[in-house]
Amino acid sequence: MTAYLLTVGDEILIGQITDTNSAWMAQQLNAQGIQIVGKLSVGDVENDIISALDLAFSKADLILMTGGLGATKDDITKKCIASYFGVEMIWHQETFDRLNTFFQRMGRVPNEMNKRGCYMPANALIINNERGLAPAMWFEREGTEGGCKVLVSMPGVPFEMMHLLADKVLPKLRQAFPMSPIAHRTIQVAGEGETMLAEKLTNFEENLPENVKLAYLPSLGVVRLRLTARGSDEAYLQAQLQTLGDEMKNLVGSAVFGEGTITLPQAIGDLLRAKKWTMATAESCTGGKVAQLITSISGSSEYFAGSAITYSNALKMNLLGVRADTLEEQGAVSEATVREMVQGAVTRLGVNVAVAISGIAGPTGGTPEKPVGLVWFAAGDGENIHTFSYVIDRGRDKNIEFAAMTALNLLRKFLLSA
Amino acid sequence: MTAYLLTVGDEILIGQITDTNSAWMAQQLNAQGIQIVGKLSVGDVENDIISALDLAFSKADLILMTGGLGATKDDITKKCIASYFGVEMIWHQETFDRLNTFFQRMGRVPNEMNKRGCYMPANALIINNERGLAPAMWFEREGTEGGCKVLVSMPGVPFEMMHLLADKVLPKLRQAFPMSPIAHRTIQVAGEGETMLAEKLTNFEENLPENVKLAYLPSLGVVRLRLTARGSDEAYLQAQLQTLGDEMKNLVGSAVFGEGTITLPQAIGDLLRAKKWTMATAESCTGGKVAQLITSISGSSEYFAGSAITYSNALKMNLLGVRADTLEEQGAVSEATVREMVQGAVTRLGVNVAVAISGIAGPTGGTPEKPVGLVWFAAGDGENIHTFSYVIDRGRDKNIEFAAMTALNLLRKFLLSA
Repeated sequence: MTAYLLTVGDEILIGQITDTNSAWMAQQLNAQGIQIVGKLSVGDVENDIISALDLAFSKADLILMTGGLGATKDDITKKCIASYFGVEMIWHQETFDRLNTFFQRMGRVPNEMNKRGCYMPANALIINNERGLAPAMWFEREGTEGGCKVLVSMPGVPFEMMHLLADKVLPKLRQAFPMSPIAHRTIQVAGEGETMLAEKLTNFEENLPENVKLAYLPSLGVVRLRLTARGSDEAYLQAQLQTLGDEMKNLVGSAVFGEGTITLPQAIGDLLRAKKWTMATAESCTGGKVAQLITSISGSSEYFAGSAITYSNALKMNLLGVRADTLEEQGAVSEATVREMVQGAVTRLGVNVAVAISGIAGPTGGTPEKPVGLVWFAAGDGENIHTFSYVIDRGRDKNIEFAAMTALNLLRKFLLSA
Repeated sequence: MTAYLLTVGDEILIGQITDTNSAWMAQQLNAQGIQIVGKLSVGDVENDIISALDLAFSKADLILMTGGLGATKDDITKKCIASYFGVEMIWHQETFDRLNTFFQRMGRVPNEMNKRGCYMPANALIINNERGLAPAMWFEREGTEGGCKVLVSMPGVPFEMMHLLADKVLPKLRQAFPMSPIAHRTIQVAGEGETMLAEKLTNFEENLPENVKLAYLPSLGVVRLRLTARGSDEAYLQAQLQTLGDEMKNLVGSAVFGEGTITLPQAIGDLLRAKKWTMATAESCTGGKVAQLITSISGSSEYFAGSAITYSNALKMNLLGVRADTLEEQGAVSEATVREMVQGAVTRLGVNVAVAISGIAGPTGGTPEKPVGLVWFAAGDGENIHTFSYVIDRGRDKNIEFAAMTALNLLRKFLLSA
């Protein structure tokens, strides 16, 4: 079964609000095995709403429409639906009674505008909204190749839409359309890019059973690999993903840091908790970003002691004990410096393990030998220290963010080896 | 001029990511007087991409398309555009050269998949992407009633798209399509909410000339007040906004921290530079977020020395010299503690001014006397210290972010008074 999302109203088009409804709706529908094939937002303009309905019905079996159901003048969704189906608007007494009761409780009476909102397209099946005044409407029409297509119109207010979709519309859909099961498994990978992974997984991907798809979902420093299986037997799909997911994890190796919605800072927290270890960060160019990621996890105070953010050379020496000779001879952005930063952090901040970062975030400050984007990393426990470096310049903000993710991954790998 | 936004890729349709690009794009285009009439998301499906292009070109003069430009198999946007325009895909040497340089710096060579990404539709004008591998593409075609319509395809990665739209595409559009004058003036305000400001500005807003509009653009801890004037004479509009903007600044007072796109960390940098002062942060619950905001500014090493992130009480004592008595008697989240954190930071990190934060970010760790959301702030130069506190709980992430913004504003106000 395929679906189309349609939103009506100017708020999204002028950038006044970010559309958070769609992601939630997509997740709900996906979990039912309903695939969304498109999502369209149009303003309160009759022509645009009509051609949106045309497009959506041509592409999908189900249209979920939100917004444009208020009683104010610019809300014309209902009129457009009526004209799309070629039906009249008729008075809906039950909606008026609900409205009346609601207003009575506030000691008011419905005005003309409220009354206008009680007219509905004649072919609408009205679905009561327990969280607001405007009900949802269910419409059916024949598909071009037979079968039945459904249009559901709901208010755009998130908590009203969520109630209507989850409690009323989805149950009604499951009744109307028997659906086939779907299963997902997501593997989280750090430190390897999309193309590098795609190369490792070429054979695996080519030999996937027809009912299983692999999606690459990259973000900065992390790629999520999601397997989706469709079929008729849910237990079979789960077993399939168990085997295939394990196979994929083996192929990717130690770059896998977890499954599902786990993040790198969480994975590190789990490793530290298992070892009963504490950690610190010693940061120069990342300016506290690594500490901030670690402490984004509730409960991180269990293993995170603190950080020395040493932007100046003076503080690298005073707070972390980096030697003046090292800074003079090797420079602040060097393997020797990050090594001493780790040693200093472990000793002076009194922790088991520390990670250090020093680099040139840019856009200024680069030299021919040490260009913008050069970053040195070290992670260790004072005895053993792993180091790493690269030159990648994607603008200051991304340089800092990517360096922070790289530092987390180096720390994770050190913890795995320690 | 009208525009259509088109996004390609499954990530949005399966609800894996929330589309934050669109709201930003809408704001940028609106600021240029370009009206968005529709927004459509489709998957990596040739038929759907083609019919999306048909719909968008029938409704708007400009199509901004994002996503689907990676080199992996599921990315077919370029092929669809070529087939839409009926042109071949041709090798683009310059893109390959850029790719090659990028890979060389990482000690690698482009693979077959990377090379496939260097083929472009023959009628594309290539726009270099300074923040990523996939360039933007600019296409022109005739409108049905004469005139020229434009399609621009960009990567969907937000920071790449933002760079391409703001730095490359909008300037090129302004050149290609002369637009009627529109002028903006934006005043940046920290520490006062939208409703508080709306109250202060009621009269001002009611008496605005018909051609001038005031928009409130709130984000966490900051509200941008944007005046927009439309007319036929640009000089007149500028003069209007000069007078009206100054009037508005006077009404809002010291909560104004700047104009245009300035950020709080930039405003603080300017104040520190003027005084030739250095600063440090001493952070507990914000976990480095304040340092990270300060160092997000290029050149911040001029005035930012570093930070002590003291999550544990041990480090509050060892790194910052907070007294054990204070921690025992008043607790880590107290006015006395943040005062001593400021004093310690100024002395031990050797700076002119410091800001300190200690609070309960939640969701756990609260008590009846010290609930989740309680935060204590201090800013000072060792001699004079300003303190502040509140209890606001909006979930861990927002609590940390809002505390960081509040700390910056306290520091700014201290610098104004010092």
